[in-house]
Amino acid sequence: MSELTHFDEQGRAHMVDVSSKADTEREAVARGRISMSKETFQRIREGRIDKGDVLSVARLAGIMAAKKTSDLIPLCHPLMLTGVNVDFTFDETAFAVTIEATVRTTGKTGVEMEALTATSAAALTIYDMAKAMDKAMVIGEIRLVEKKGGKSGHFINKE
Amino acid sequence: MSELTHFDEQGRAHMVDVSSKADTEREAVARGRISMSKETFQRIREGRIDKGDVLSVARLAGIMAAKKTSDLIPLCHPLMLTGVNVDFTFDETAFAVTIEATVRTTGKTGVEMEALTATSAAALTIYDMAKAMDKAMVIGEIRLVEKKGGKSGHFINKE
Amino acid sequence: MSELTHFDEQGRAHMVDVSSKADTEREAVARGRISMSKETFQRIREGRIDKGDVLSVARLAGIMAAKKTSDLIPLCHPLMLTGVNVDFTFDETAFAVTIEATVRTTGKTGVEMEALTATSAAALTIYDMAKAMDKAMVIGEIRLVEKKGGKSGHFINKE
Amino acid sequence: MSELTHFDEQGRAHMVDVSSKADTEREAVARGRISMSKETFQRIREGRIDKGDVLSVARLAGIMAAKKTSDLIPLCHPLMLTGVNVDFTFDETAFAVTIEATVRTTGKTGVEMEALTATSAAALTIYDMAKAMDKAMVIGEIRLVEKKGGKSGHFINKE
Amino acid sequence: MSELTHFDEQGRAHMVDVSSKADTEREAVARGRISMSKETFQRIREGRIDKGDVLSVARLAGIMAAKKTSDLIPLCHPLMLTGVNVDFTFDETAFAVTIEATVRTTGKTGVEMEALTATSAAALTIYDMAKAMDKAMVIGEIRLVEKKGGKSGHFINKE
Amino acid sequence: MSELTHFDEQGRAHMVDVSSKADTEREAVARGRISMSKETFQRIREGRIDKGDVLSVARLAGIMAAKKTSDLIPLCHPLMLTGVNVDFTFDETAFAVTIEATVRTTGKTGVEMEALTATSAAALTIYDMAKAMDKAMVIGEIRLVEKKGGKSGHFINKE
Repeated sequence: MSELTHFDEQGRAHMVDVSSKADTEREAVARGRISMSKETFQRIREGRIDKGDVLSVARLAGIMAAKKTSDLIPLCHPLMLTGVNVDFTFDETAFAVTIEATVRTTGKTGVEMEALTATSAAALTIYDMAKAMDKAMVIGEIRLVEKKGGKSGHFINKE
Repeated sequence: MSELTHFDEQGRAHMVDVSSKADTEREAVARGRISMSKETFQRIREGRIDKGDVLSVARLAGIMAAKKTSDLIPLCHPLMLTGVNVDFTFDETAFAVTIEATVRTTGKTGVEMEALTATSAAALTIYDMAKAMDKAMVIGEIRLVEKKGGKSGHFINKE
Repeated sequence: MSELTHFDEQGRAHMVDVSSKADTEREAVARGRISMSKETFQRIREGRIDKGDVLSVARLAGIMAAKKTSDLIPLCHPLMLTGVNVDFTFDETAFAVTIEATVRTTGKTGVEMEALTATSAAALTIYDMAKAMDKAMVIGEIRLVEKKGGKSGHFINKE
Repeated sequence: MSELTHFDEQGRAHMVDVSSKADTEREAVARGRISMSKETFQRIREGRIDKGDVLSVARLAGIMAAKKTSDLIPLCHPLMLTGVNVDFTFDETAFAVTIEATVRTTGKTGVEMEALTATSAAALTIYDMAKAMDKAMVIGEIRLVEKKGGKSGHFINKE
Repeated sequence: MSELTHFDEQGRAHMVDVSSKADTEREAVARGRISMSKETFQRIREGRIDKGDVLSVARLAGIMAAKKTSDLIPLCHPLMLTGVNVDFTFDETAFAVTIEATVRTTGKTGVEMEALTATSAAALTIYDMAKAMDKAMVIGEIRLVEKKGGKSGHFINKE
Repeated sequence: MSELTHFDEQGRAHMVDVSSKADTEREAVARGRISMSKETFQRIREGRIDKGDVLSVARLAGIMAAKKTSDLIPLCHPLMLTGVNVDFTFDETAFAVTIEATVRTTGKTGVEMEALTATSAAALTIYDMAKAMDKAMVIGEIRLVEKKGGKSGHFINKE
């Protein structure tokens, strides 16, 4: 039966002991989106052509946040990340920017939290940079899309 | 006309100069939710009674993340927070936990990003603590609900 | 003869070169205590039953501080922790809470400092949360209890 | 009656709202000690004359840790410190080093936690630097000695 | 006579007490440069037109580093920055990129260290991003250019 | 042909995937200098004899900054450092202090950035500690001197 592994048998929070796990190559992909007004969407999309590029700032924020994951998520193990990509696509009909983060490591635990944290930080940064125009933006659909490596094997989120 | 204030007139990213702004009392409220399977939802809700309490860990993660906002969001001003609350409600029909973060400061810029960051970090922590049971949880509807203080005045998000 | 290894032969502080050491499984256990008034002691002990639980906040503070050890202790090597536990017992006669932290890693250096840092941060957090009631609490007896792994082998502190 | 102010009326942890408090000058003094073998004590004391000075490293660790207090103690308010001193005295009969940290700020909350954190980090750093010689050192008697400023006024710990 | 203010009368390092100083508006400008091969210089300059823009990454690194100054420089006071700009110019004859950082705050101490730290971090980031092409780049001429506000008044570096 | 590896084929910044690289022993040596007035130079040099030692503070700042490199440089991989040395020499004719940082690790990427960051932070700290005497100090000639380990082999900067 599945368990909340971050608690021990007495119900106390702990950082799970993974000492005996093997170091394996791991990868996780997370996705999310931020929806906005048509005007804001167009202004951000134009940024790809102009120099004032919201998405290049958000990409760096996502990459740097992935490295801080174990500092943000209390019971998360520290990990030496070996690669991070954060990419964006424009959903022209919904006036939304879609964020996808891919994180890799060789280690004893997976990088799901790192990929989700990178996605969240990139979305928050887009909000920060466009909030003078549009305070009603909504961040959503942040979820794990795929996960490779480790004992639990290959997970694909059948959405 | 509204602008992307985080860029100067040459389109270069900068931390906006707020030196001449007055220090005023400010407050922001953000909300979000995390949806999950019925089994996971019930297990987390039980945690309120047992000692193994997912939400008390997530609450602390949210409060601590609020304090790190200017380290996570590249162009965000540092602020001395004077109060942070993170609360949860259970949506029994949707199998979702709703997160609400309220942040206060006395300063030259608002605390919207702090409230949104607290909400995101609390949601990510719930994901982390329950992911051994349920990898398909979805974080969503993260948005600013209300904002007081500062030049732009009282904002209420008419959802 | 034993040496202060954090200084080189010219007496200059350095981070000792451990490049040639083997990665081995390591564990350290540290303990400490915080003494307080009878009233404060009883209020904290009740917290185990009520929701307002001082010790669950202190536990998280200890776990998170263990991950920050190399940032706090100037010449300490960074390490990827593989497990952290922080537990408490109530000393009913002395009106004291005893803290025990166990830290594990697979690495080139031991985790004594991580266990001692977790213990200290948990004690400081108890102080912070109860200081409105009792400013005269005393933190003490923080020491290494046991250490396994590495060249120096199994150490037990014969107290 | 005194209360655990870090919990709200529902027993939920929060960062207490201090928005309406006045900014006043505040100061806190904390003390602690680390006891050790005679040999270790003498080696550290000699360091004051030689260049390899354990205490100057520990002093810096204490000062820098004071600045990280709100990152270490979950519900602690961030504060702009305006002064930090960390000093040491040698207890020749007990083979112990006594640590005293004084922290100052102008702000809405006191700096007790900053002074206690500086003291703890200085003690931990002494442990780290001498642990190759002496693993049985004990850190103790960490307590608030004096506190000035703020609503609760002048507190002196009558030890 | 001028003094090393970061030491007290006994020669012990401390964070200078600035409690009694007034909060005034302050600004500092620092400059530096990184010299490189002609090929590397041209590739970076082209980046202004292509999407792969070394300088926009370096600009963010500089801005974010300014916010971390008190964490990097041991005896530096924490400050709430109210504005940061990092700009670049191309020195076509020397194959060098010139970096200029301007930092503002309202506070009790100046922002010279923040401006110098932003300049250094931006230069280091350019090195990092171009080092696969050119390991022999040299960072230099990092100095304070101008400083306003505070007791010492308006300083202009007559170079 | 050499490339800016921190960008992918679409010109987007990323943290390069090094998952398939071998863990090898790596070492990097960086150097830099800070030039100052004769009076400042003499005062710092005397510090080696007195207790008020600018260089011992700068050395610790350099060592601690090396551990923060991946937090400062946006696309830099985190690494577990296994050794850091920071040393100084006095250039009596130029009134300059020369800084040399040596960093070691066993990992998938090199430690050039860590050595350069340590050198920069040590130089900035010297500036901070002497700036009350001399605001016109100049930090310069920060460059990689030598690099061992990894696919690109042994690099010596032929200056």
